[in-house]
Amino acid sequence: MLTLYTAFGTIGLACEIALEEAGAPYEARRLNFAENEQRADPYLAVNPKSRVPALATERGVITETPAILGYIARAFPAAGLAPLGDAFAMAELDSLMSYLAGWVHPAAAHRHRGYRWADDPAAIAEMRRKAPEVFGQAMGLIDTQLFKGPWAMGEAYSVADPYLYVATSWLPRDTLDMADFPRLADHHARMSERPAVRTVLARVAAG
Amino acid sequence: MLTLYTAFGTIGLACEIALEEAGAPYEARRLNFAENEQRADPYLAVNPKSRVPALATERGVITETPAILGYIARAFPAAGLAPLGDAFAMAELDSLMSYLAGWVHPAAAHRHRGYRWADDPAAIAEMRRKAPEVFGQAMGLIDTQLFKGPWAMGEAYSVADPYLYVATSWLPRDTLDMADFPRLADHHARMSERPAVRTVLARVAAG
Repeated sequence: MLTLYTAFGTIGLACEIALEEAGAPYEARRLNFAENEQRADPYLAVNPKSRVPALATERGVITETPAILGYIARAFPAAGLAPLGDAFAMAELDSLMSYLAGWVHPAAAHRHRGYRWADDPAAIAEMRRKAPEVFGQAMGLIDTQLFKGPWAMGEAYSVADPYLYVATSWLPRDTLDMADFPRLADHHARMSERPAVRTVLARVAAG
Repeated sequence: MLTLYTAFGTIGLACEIALEEAGAPYEARRLNFAENEQRADPYLAVNPKSRVPALATERGVITETPAILGYIARAFPAAGLAPLGDAFAMAELDSLMSYLAGWVHPAAAHRHRGYRWADDPAAIAEMRRKAPEVFGQAMGLIDTQLFKGPWAMGEAYSVADPYLYVATSWLPRDTLDMADFPRLADHHARMSERPAVRTVLARVAAG
């Protein structure tokens, strides 16, 4: 049994969808960010980074979204969630996930969590102002150049799809219009119809 | 023949060392950042993200450091640069690389490239002031908890080692004392003695 530590409104949702798609045996443990549960000792013993998601396996805890998604793809190969065995195709998958983790997600985080990189309230406000521009440019690059279609990496659905789906869902929250990203909007709509996504969203909504 | 697009002072150095360790046939093309070569049309045709590193292969261009390093490990398996075939160990490797790409590297970038996330010079100055604190905390977590020793992932040298080596080399540049990170300092010293690292550093120094 795998345990996914996640929280509402976070990229942990991508991992939960991937676990569901993989048919993995798992439970989701939802941390209460309002009560700073991610900074309390019990969770720090799971993940000293004080972040979600984290995936507890029988061999240990895995952190960082691309690593968790890669693990799910490798541990449940029958689900076909990554082009295992094709070095170049795996590099393309890793590249999109790394772009989401290393550039897109931090760009969005400057809107909501600017305190990570500045103490001065005026600087935090300035980051918050600019964040949609930076986040939007990155998502625009995915929409126009990196997205292959019909799924993120092409014909085959992969762990990159729930990752991209959650990032796309952040566009309206960050004052951006999903309609300005037509391929991502179409992808988001098709993702929303997948049974695994419906199952997870219903469970999250139930709390 | 692989072509690595890189530039002085960037994380591209990690990929160049990994190519050398792998015994890969490659050439390094060094972009002139002082002349904004990374923003000029010829390079945008290689990598529309306008960043280095990028690795041109016969099947296409790979961007993002974790993806390039993972590709090198998979394409040259005889070099033993990743625990291919072990889902959990690969996840641990991916996790460290993703932490470096998604948190450590952006933390350091707030010192030198704050313009990515703010326009106001005062906000950029505030990020620059705080960056060593954030970067240092992240490197401290690696030093005390994530680093396994003697190499980053334990007994086996992997593509995470050149990645960590370059990040460690940024500590003094960013006003931090490498001696405060004793395990990383020891790792850095041992890395510096490796023939592949010496070969690459000599080539970089030659221009």
